[in-house]
Amino acid sequence: MPDASNPSPSRRELLRMIGLSAGGAAMYQAMIQLGFAAESSYTGPIKLEGRPRAGTSVLILGAGLAGMTAAWELRKAGYKVKILEYNDRAGGRNWSLYGGDTYTELGGATQHCRFDKGLYLNPGPWRIPYHHHAVLDTCKMLGVKLEPFIQVNYNAFLHNSQAFGGKPQRLRTIKADAQGHIAELLSKAIQQNALEAAVTGEDREKLLEGLRSWGALGKDHRYVKGTASSNRRGFEKDPGGGLSARPIPSQPLTLQDMLSADAWSGLVAGENYEMQTTMFQPVGGMGMIGKTFGKALGEVIRYRSKITEIRQDASGVTVSYEDLAAPGSTLTERADWCLCTLPLSILSQLPINVGPKMEAAISAVPYNASVKVGLQFKRRFWEQDERIYGGISYTDTPIRSIAYPATDYFSDGKGVLLGAYAGGQGAVELTSMTPEQRIEAALEYGSRIHPQYRAEFDNGIAVAWHRVPFTQGCAGRWTEDTRAEHYDNLCQIDGRIALAGEHASYIPAWMEGAITSAHDAIGRLHQHVLAGARP
Amino acid sequence: MPDASNPSPSRRELLRMIGLSAGGAAMYQAMIQLGFAAESSYTGPIKLEGRPRAGTSVLILGAGLAGMTAAWELRKAGYKVKILEYNDRAGGRNWSLYGGDTYTELGGATQHCRFDKGLYLNPGPWRIPYHHHAVLDTCKMLGVKLEPFIQVNYNAFLHNSQAFGGKPQRLRTIKADAQGHIAELLSKAIQQNALEAAVTGEDREKLLEGLRSWGALGKDHRYVKGTASSNRRGFEKDPGGGLSARPIPSQPLTLQDMLSADAWSGLVAGENYEMQTTMFQPVGGMGMIGKTFGKALGEVIRYRSKITEIRQDASGVTVSYEDLAAPGSTLTERADWCLCTLPLSILSQLPINVGPKMEAAISAVPYNASVKVGLQFKRRFWEQDERIYGGISYTDTPIRSIAYPATDYFSDGKGVLLGAYAGGQGAVELTSMTPEQRIEAALEYGSRIHPQYRAEFDNGIAVAWHRVPFTQGCAGRWTEDTRAEHYDNLCQIDGRIALAGEHASYIPAWMEGAITSAHDAIGRLHQHVLAGARP
Repeated sequence: MPDASNPSPSRRELLRMIGLSAGGAAMYQAMIQLGFAAESSYTGPIKLEGRPRAGTSVLILGAGLAGMTAAWELRKAGYKVKILEYNDRAGGRNWSLYGGDTYTELGGATQHCRFDKGLYLNPGPWRIPYHHHAVLDTCKMLGVKLEPFIQVNYNAFLHNSQAFGGKPQRLRTIKADAQGHIAELLSKAIQQNALEAAVTGEDREKLLEGLRSWGALGKDHRYVKGTASSNRRGFEKDPGGGLSARPIPSQPLTLQDMLSADAWSGLVAGENYEMQTTMFQPVGGMGMIGKTFGKALGEVIRYRSKITEIRQDASGVTVSYEDLAAPGSTLTERADWCLCTLPLSILSQLPINVGPKMEAAISAVPYNASVKVGLQFKRRFWEQDERIYGGISYTDTPIRSIAYPATDYFSDGKGVLLGAYAGGQGAVELTSMTPEQRIEAALEYGSRIHPQYRAEFDNGIAVAWHRVPFTQGCAGRWTEDTRAEHYDNLCQIDGRIALAGEHASYIPAWMEGAITSAHDAIGRLHQHVLAGARP
Repeated sequence: MPDASNPSPSRRELLRMIGLSAGGAAMYQAMIQLGFAAESSYTGPIKLEGRPRAGTSVLILGAGLAGMTAAWELRKAGYKVKILEYNDRAGGRNWSLYGGDTYTELGGATQHCRFDKGLYLNPGPWRIPYHHHAVLDTCKMLGVKLEPFIQVNYNAFLHNSQAFGGKPQRLRTIKADAQGHIAELLSKAIQQNALEAAVTGEDREKLLEGLRSWGALGKDHRYVKGTASSNRRGFEKDPGGGLSARPIPSQPLTLQDMLSADAWSGLVAGENYEMQTTMFQPVGGMGMIGKTFGKALGEVIRYRSKITEIRQDASGVTVSYEDLAAPGSTLTERADWCLCTLPLSILSQLPINVGPKMEAAISAVPYNASVKVGLQFKRRFWEQDERIYGGISYTDTPIRSIAYPATDYFSDGKGVLLGAYAGGQGAVELTSMTPEQRIEAALEYGSRIHPQYRAEFDNGIAVAWHRVPFTQGCAGRWTEDTRAEHYDNLCQIDGRIALAGEHASYIPAWMEGAITSAHDAIGRLHQHVLAGARP
């Protein structure tokens, strides 16, 4: 027995008391020696060592996350920096639309956002994975407060127009039934010795036992109606307190019905590395990052400046631009170096004198279509009626997803959900519509999942990325082939011009790609400068 | 093409534009008619219809969630209510320990909590499932603000002393590899036609295709090193931006190694109905519910009152109690009815004149052992060093879990994590130790998962539920047999006495059980009173 008068037992006493074997201790030592390998090569914010010659200047095109990261770090390292930005705000695709905002897309359609105070749509990025260290560190540096983003909600819906008479199913039921049937089938195969070569001896028993708990199987390794399966998929009637509170188990789908749901991608949505818990979002909208960054850079950024030409010579780079406050004007800015973060969809339309390899690379990357629709409703019926708090419902209709706000849970008053996040052909079709028609489409399709839509709808806003003036597309779409041929050529510094942005990364469409591509580009540019490439 | 001059297309136009078939619309109608069945029988806060005779009184024992719920609703319905409570605070097991709190356990050991401001340990309940409607509604009613509780963190650890040389593994790697190997094995069995009877025809192809995406299989339905598997389990080197940012895939575990981890329960921890996303916790600690409820009830609660006897007669119930401020005192309180929410572990030690069936039921339920240890560290190294934001690591050592705070992410300064949540034999062993020894054990075992423990440790507090004076146990442990024999007898009103609490529910240990058992008991009591059982 432990000696109660001795509040600090020696390690030996502890080992004795709680039965820790010497083998365990040896393993512990071994574990310490092995260490904990980091899964990322990122080791913290970039540090540019050494100073450039006084006055060395870098002109940065685009005040998105890549451009602002570069400006921030280069200025710190001693460079004279300036950013030219098309919009009248910082952030680029890091952007939130709030009530009072006005947005005009290509083609001229103008929308006035009428969301209530505090509500928003993130037309671009909306979630941050835990391993996107550069984004998280940028938020920390800027003081942007983060809150959890809920990717997976077991109580959200999977909706397939062709299955279950079009009736949406709760994610947890399909997920439990898929796992249950898979576990039952594999158990059967093992018991029939169909996998003798692959699973032998002790492993056979371990796997059978594991599948039982993993798949919530009942007796005889079968996935059946009962407490085990209902403890995953939910009950016909939930357990409660007192008399008459006995739970009633629910009936699992058959294997055939489960397969008919064709819901595999929805089932693993939260298992993909980029969507795993714990994800984050900035409090108040993703655009808080760009907005705060822009404020921190202050006078470094010149807004409403539309780039018209980029021309380098032996001693520097001259960039021509139009002051959008003075239509038709042509101004120029000159610097020793230029870091261009314009999307390739825009850059490929501009005159720029780079070598044939970079030129080919700039033209090699088409941009994805994507459409997001934000819908404001008079009340948060998804919470109040259906107990859905955050997370995403998936559908086979063109809106593809409905995402519920991961903030202000249980609040009264209005709420904004993401009523469409379309890609592919659906996005192309929605892009061809007017904003009002996109909103109507989101309502029409969304009504099939939430019948409350029509009665509760208040107002909406729709962003089709192919019509967004400053990008004309959502994000660069690389293939294995184009990457093999063009990627390195895109990233190599060409004379006095370097490129950065999500398109110059292996994680396109993610903010992490934009920031780390800026780190990489300015790191090499700085080495270049220090090595004496004379301005 | 849509007519851009008409911003509000008719439904017919929309159908044409986006190719919605008549079949789809028919399905939509069918879906609406089918409606969306609620999964719970709970339809909102209880409403007691009809008024009792003026002055009808109910004495409630225990100011936990069951007792306070009953007092709140009975008072509203017109009853005269009073609660006698052992502690000097409301909430019972709904309880958070903060810096400045003092806690004395059975045996006399006293701990002074030295956590920094804002940090806490929840010795009892600590998370709220989305389908625990009664708890969520109670929080809403009281104005207790909720924030997401993170149950699953893919970047947290699974630790098995006997596997991988004791080196903890990231949850995401074991999870991905289990799923991958299961998918590969089942695919193999299907391709060998080993499951011909169970999976036929078109389903065979659907399942094979589904398993490929679900298991992240590569070519030939094999789970191998490559982009597909690394997009689940993480990379050897993460993708990044610029040159030299090419990702390096990680090497999956073999089936044998994956089985050696014996991690099945950790893999499904977030898939159980009670642990599925989205879960919640009150901002500032679970104890905020009890604290706020107690304040709302005010004078209704008499604190520091230790029940010593419960005696009913033909016209009412007399309860004797000791005023803990006056040791040895005996006071009495009389009412027409008594609702007793004392844990059975306490009630079974008290004289109470109920019938033999309820008496047998009161003695039939043993109480679980459970130990929780809160550890304050000088910095949030789990976030800063290991990028673990909330969630739980699992270990086969007696501490069983390490849970990371799901609030104040990325904050500087100190942090408190749950350093042990022991049950079973481990809890019994930890209970036999002094609080200081429990903390030392938590540090010793926890160091095997987080080597930073010793250097960063600041202070701790340990609660062993079998030594908690007001419950002497964690929660009622029912078996199928005891429930069949005793449960209804426990819940039936005996003369003028009714019981409520998590022990009188089908969801023991959960606050939802306590609240819904109170709803059920007072609902029946009220009917009883209205039906003329004369006081």
